[in-house]
Amino acid sequence: MTVKIGILGAGQLGMMLGSAGLPLEIHCVFLDPNPLSPARLVGKHICDDFCTRAVNALAEEVEVITFEFENIPYEAIVGLDRTILVHPSLNAIKVSQDRLLEKLLFEELAIPTTRYVSIDELDELKNAFLKFEFGAVLKTRRLGYDGKGQIVIKQWTNETPLDAKNIVYQQAILEELITFDYEVSCIGVFSEHESAFYPLNLNTHHNGVLLHTKPIEGHPLFAQAKVYVEKIAKKLGYQGVLTVEFFVKDGKLIANEIAPRVHNSGHWTIEGAHCSQFENHLRAICNLPLGETTLLNSSVEMWNILSVLPNKKRLLEVPGLHLHIYGKEPQAGRKLGHVTVTKKTDADISSLFLSET
Amino acid sequence: MTVKIGILGAGQLGMMLGSAGLPLEIHCVFLDPNPLSPARLVGKHICDDFCTRAVNALAEEVEVITFEFENIPYEAIVGLDRTILVHPSLNAIKVSQDRLLEKLLFEELAIPTTRYVSIDELDELKNAFLKFEFGAVLKTRRLGYDGKGQIVIKQWTNETPLDAKNIVYQQAILEELITFDYEVSCIGVFSEHESAFYPLNLNTHHNGVLLHTKPIEGHPLFAQAKVYVEKIAKKLGYQGVLTVEFFVKDGKLIANEIAPRVHNSGHWTIEGAHCSQFENHLRAICNLPLGETTLLNSSVEMWNILSVLPNKKRLLEVPGLHLHIYGKEPQAGRKLGHVTVTKKTDADISSLFLSET
Repeated sequence: MTVKIGILGAGQLGMMLGSAGLPLEIHCVFLDPNPLSPARLVGKHICDDFCTRAVNALAEEVEVITFEFENIPYEAIVGLDRTILVHPSLNAIKVSQDRLLEKLLFEELAIPTTRYVSIDELDELKNAFLKFEFGAVLKTRRLGYDGKGQIVIKQWTNETPLDAKNIVYQQAILEELITFDYEVSCIGVFSEHESAFYPLNLNTHHNGVLLHTKPIEGHPLFAQAKVYVEKIAKKLGYQGVLTVEFFVKDGKLIANEIAPRVHNSGHWTIEGAHCSQFENHLRAICNLPLGETTLLNSSVEMWNILSVLPNKKRLLEVPGLHLHIYGKEPQAGRKLGHVTVTKKTDADISSLFLSET
Repeated sequence: MTVKIGILGAGQLGMMLGSAGLPLEIHCVFLDPNPLSPARLVGKHICDDFCTRAVNALAEEVEVITFEFENIPYEAIVGLDRTILVHPSLNAIKVSQDRLLEKLLFEELAIPTTRYVSIDELDELKNAFLKFEFGAVLKTRRLGYDGKGQIVIKQWTNETPLDAKNIVYQQAILEELITFDYEVSCIGVFSEHESAFYPLNLNTHHNGVLLHTKPIEGHPLFAQAKVYVEKIAKKLGYQGVLTVEFFVKDGKLIANEIAPRVHNSGHWTIEGAHCSQFENHLRAICNLPLGETTLLNSSVEMWNILSVLPNKKRLLEVPGLHLHIYGKEPQAGRKLGHVTVTKKTDADISSLFLSET
């Protein structure tokens, strides 16, 4: 009865996937070069590089391969779906690895997104920049996350900034800088014949890293977000959890990026929804019926624990607070854990763990 | 920051304790002679007998020792608390291993219980039996669970039944057979300075094995049950989760037995309470603040999966159904898993997995 799933990456998302699988007899085998990967505690950990050899070794042990981390070198997985089920599709991984392909997909599907220019050479930068009234963000096409691999350029000076050189050297896009009202994410889950969506998440970032999420029942943009996410899933032949981040400006959605996996803004689903995003991802890729995505509890909110570990006792004193520590070495800006609250509280949660850095 | 807990036993209760510990950086090390113990998936498993040598080896790896199974040979743990923290107390384990000591404790604390006679010799049986109007249950003093090690005697015949001989040979008690209206269990959790209680559970058994539990908010006997459980905990110097099963007859509680651990009737707390009995047991024995024990969801109910594994797909089609499979070999009467439902449903849940045996 046991099903074995191979997961590329063994971070905290892997840990939460592994935990969700155990009661369903879905056992995860992880590939990750980090010997102290959080997910090693909930499944077999193959400690090796993301290379063809190691990926093939993983494939021999499992029935389906999936991802908790999309920035696997593409050459390590290309063609993998000829020998084993891979969910989501390799095409979904390819697109989400590259901001330019993402933009092209949004355009093809008529999903509003910020204006941008693809930049391959440094001397293209100035002209591109001058197209945008309010400044621009230069982003590497690949391997960016949590605000890494990007710089904001507000004014053009004679000198091209050094950071910009490094970014363009790796291939880049220049996106217009926009002001927006707030950010949301839409988490959908797709199996072969079904789809389901969690309520829209209202997200707050701090230095480019997600800090707080609150799911909003009945958000007026939910229906539109679902249409966009469904379009993307259909186009990519998607199976599993798919997350799309949007800016909201003047009551309209502007697609920002795709995450082809369970997402930080869905951590609250462990305690706050009938079926978590982690369990639903596993159900979806194993062709099991999808679980109920509605809110179990309308007071639910999530905060990330960044940079510094908090005092465990003080946090656990808060009624209805759920602590998730990932077991990673503290480092400035790093996601070390999160808390989910399932009960209305007067406690100032964030003051209990927000670091000064 | 990681705390290591040693757990005697590595069954499904250990598996759920281990899973609950991971996000709190509480890592469990299990001792259990069964190489296929369910809990091996969520922590280190020392596969060895319950003997002094193995228990001492476990003690060297961990900071606290606890139990997911109380029927450890007492000689393997006697004196263990001189070298390491043991929660609950060895005395609590000793009492709950022996139905006679349990009865004496109930009597000492003026907690109503069924009448009984301690039986050491076969020739004591007849006279003892004749004291009870409606028949009696002969039970081994030790090692009984799920209706095992006991027989009901409704009428006295000339021949002492063979089963009775086997039971008396191991030391026994003869308890009056009573009719009762229903059964409840009260799950309390005790740390050094705090205590908390889950709502009273209404339990239904099938052939002596728990089949269904429904927590009842505001049950009229809740206050009385708490008083009894608190008395027991105080008397035993108890730290951790403590469960007491009661019969209810004419609106009064009659104590049946003590389980010095997390309990099958509390499995619904994983999805149905703010903090599960598993997390709360770990919090209690680590002197962390206790978690909120109130219902997160008033529709919650739990069914055990006995004897035969159900069709996973059919079960997972039920909205709000949470499946927990323990990974044990099917066997008549064995607890193979459970389901918790967090959403009102018209589906006849039990028909989806109730076996014919």
